[in-house]
Amino acid sequence: MASTTQTKSNSGVEKHADINWDELGFDLVPADYMYVTKCGKEENFTNGNIIPYANIAISPFAGILNYGQGLLESLKAYRRDDGRVLLFRPEQNAQRMQIGAERLCMPSPSIEHFVEAVKQTVLANKHWVPPPGKGSLYVRPLLIGSGPVLSLVTAPEISFLIHACPVGNYHKGPINLLVEDKTHRATPGGTGDIKTITNYSPVYKAIAQAKARGFSDVLFLDAVTKKYIEEVSSCNIFIVKGNVISTPAICGTILPGITRKSIIEIALGFGYQVEERVIPLKDLFDVDEVFCTGTAVVVSPVASITYGDKRVEYKTGAETVSKKLYDMLTGIQTGRIEDKMGWTVEID
Amino acid sequence: MASTTQTKSNSGVEKHADINWDELGFDLVPADYMYVTKCGKEENFTNGNIIPYANIAISPFAGILNYGQGLLESLKAYRRDDGRVLLFRPEQNAQRMQIGAERLCMPSPSIEHFVEAVKQTVLANKHWVPPPGKGSLYVRPLLIGSGPVLSLVTAPEISFLIHACPVGNYHKGPINLLVEDKTHRATPGGTGDIKTITNYSPVYKAIAQAKARGFSDVLFLDAVTKKYIEEVSSCNIFIVKGNVISTPAICGTILPGITRKSIIEIALGFGYQVEERVIPLKDLFDVDEVFCTGTAVVVSPVASITYGDKRVEYKTGAETVSKKLYDMLTGIQTGRIEDKMGWTVEID
Repeated sequence: MASTTQTKSNSGVEKHADINWDELGFDLVPADYMYVTKCGKEENFTNGNIIPYANIAISPFAGILNYGQGLLESLKAYRRDDGRVLLFRPEQNAQRMQIGAERLCMPSPSIEHFVEAVKQTVLANKHWVPPPGKGSLYVRPLLIGSGPVLSLVTAPEISFLIHACPVGNYHKGPINLLVEDKTHRATPGGTGDIKTITNYSPVYKAIAQAKARGFSDVLFLDAVTKKYIEEVSSCNIFIVKGNVISTPAICGTILPGITRKSIIEIALGFGYQVEERVIPLKDLFDVDEVFCTGTAVVVSPVASITYGDKRVEYKTGAETVSKKLYDMLTGIQTGRIEDKMGWTVEID
Repeated sequence: MASTTQTKSNSGVEKHADINWDELGFDLVPADYMYVTKCGKEENFTNGNIIPYANIAISPFAGILNYGQGLLESLKAYRRDDGRVLLFRPEQNAQRMQIGAERLCMPSPSIEHFVEAVKQTVLANKHWVPPPGKGSLYVRPLLIGSGPVLSLVTAPEISFLIHACPVGNYHKGPINLLVEDKTHRATPGGTGDIKTITNYSPVYKAIAQAKARGFSDVLFLDAVTKKYIEEVSSCNIFIVKGNVISTPAICGTILPGITRKSIIEIALGFGYQVEERVIPLKDLFDVDEVFCTGTAVVVSPVASITYGDKRVEYKTGAETVSKKLYDMLTGIQTGRIEDKMGWTVEID
């Protein structure tokens, strides 16, 4: 448990965790409390408990450890200028977890249960929600096969956990992507469209190799033809040409990102034409801007994309479409811009 | 801990676990002891310890829980008629774990360390190795990212665990397969050729749907063309026509099974022609026999394969190639047939 110091907010005397908020990056600083509940594989979840953050005890034969039966979610809690705390579209994470659970043969919490559990977790860790402008509290719900199994079947016990960690920016500055044409993140008939834990460690090596060459991350191509762009290791991608903003269509291999969905709605509101379509790799070489979206990266401008010996650079900075979208999205998320969409949820 | 009763073996007074060995199936009955060791992500493993089987304590942010950073292995210990206990090619599992660890950016135990750790685990659980003819002790080494992470990087701590469970037959009688043409197990550029935990839960739903229709398991097709057979959910597949035995070639999407490899060598020794090749789905409709191989299923004859509304039946029973291969393999594994290959390893 980290120590805490007292700070004052509009909602009264409140403790603020004792860390240097100005240096907050994307390193792990677990918040003090977590949420836990469990149920049998044929049962429905009932309300769980907020408990002090600690290691969990799990069978060596647990489905999650032996067969990867797990889903993750990611969302953030933001502190408004007046000290109150907002969640951004948590019911969307709840819905995505339900779809993933159906695919991985697990029961899942109801949307109301999920949202209430996230609220309780954030409330218990409210002193870990960074001051305005310093970052956010990253919230990580997990749905895992925690019971022991030997055969390839759903674990007899499923656990729904939520833990949290304060974070700053994922990338420092614009990002430089490398097109990865050997490793694939997803395949039709696979799990690219659900947020399963099994989508991540298989791309570690590609990311590590790209980082060793000075790139920020990799951009994956489709596994069948290697001709179309799909997504970056943990975020969706958009391209901008004139008034048209395009992103790969959700058709089985693309994660239906909540930031992706929100940015599409914001862009349409601004009057841009938005296309969800199959995007050939070659389209990257003739666009004005490229940016990535995701809970961790928010809206991150892409400075360059390299494919083989070809490198293309894109516009970044103040006068860009991505900056305009970023400002609106984060304005809504932090309560500085009126939320006409009804996306934010106050936790107290 | 299960209770134990005393039985007599050639090696002196020895306790035998008190279960009904005649009814041993493939259900989970954890053996009494497990092996555990840990190291940092940049370190090498040192020798671990045999400890009583128990839940493990793991961070909610562990790489294995959030990003699926884990490898599994499977091997079996067999009791000879004289009471001594044999392992089958454990160094092959060790090598496969090393290849997988390199792919998932983890350190791995040396081959010597792996084999010694498996021996220690089996020795500690010797009373759980079933009597001759009643089954085997299934041994499950795991290599998992046990340390906490937030970004998509290797966990700071990696754990090497081995736990075990006595088992009988995986399938009761010949198996009936359904060709699955929507879900894919693997893709080129994916992880189909390493034994990662991420290959398993993504196929639960396809297996469950096939079982609900009365099938034993599913046969996957390649993800790119859907024209070629790959493997069953947890075993390799072979087809037999006359003197020719064929199995899909190891080319990125096929797990390099140790039973697969051993059966190829045994078949060559018997004088069969063995082809490792791309196998079109249509080849299934004109063969004499089909069988599956794997640590769990050993050599299991396939009675039928169904694809859409087409069902093909195959020869099973006493006078089959698969029975001849099964008898030789299990004869070597259990010490009833002289091991001219040097495949078996005695544990004491």
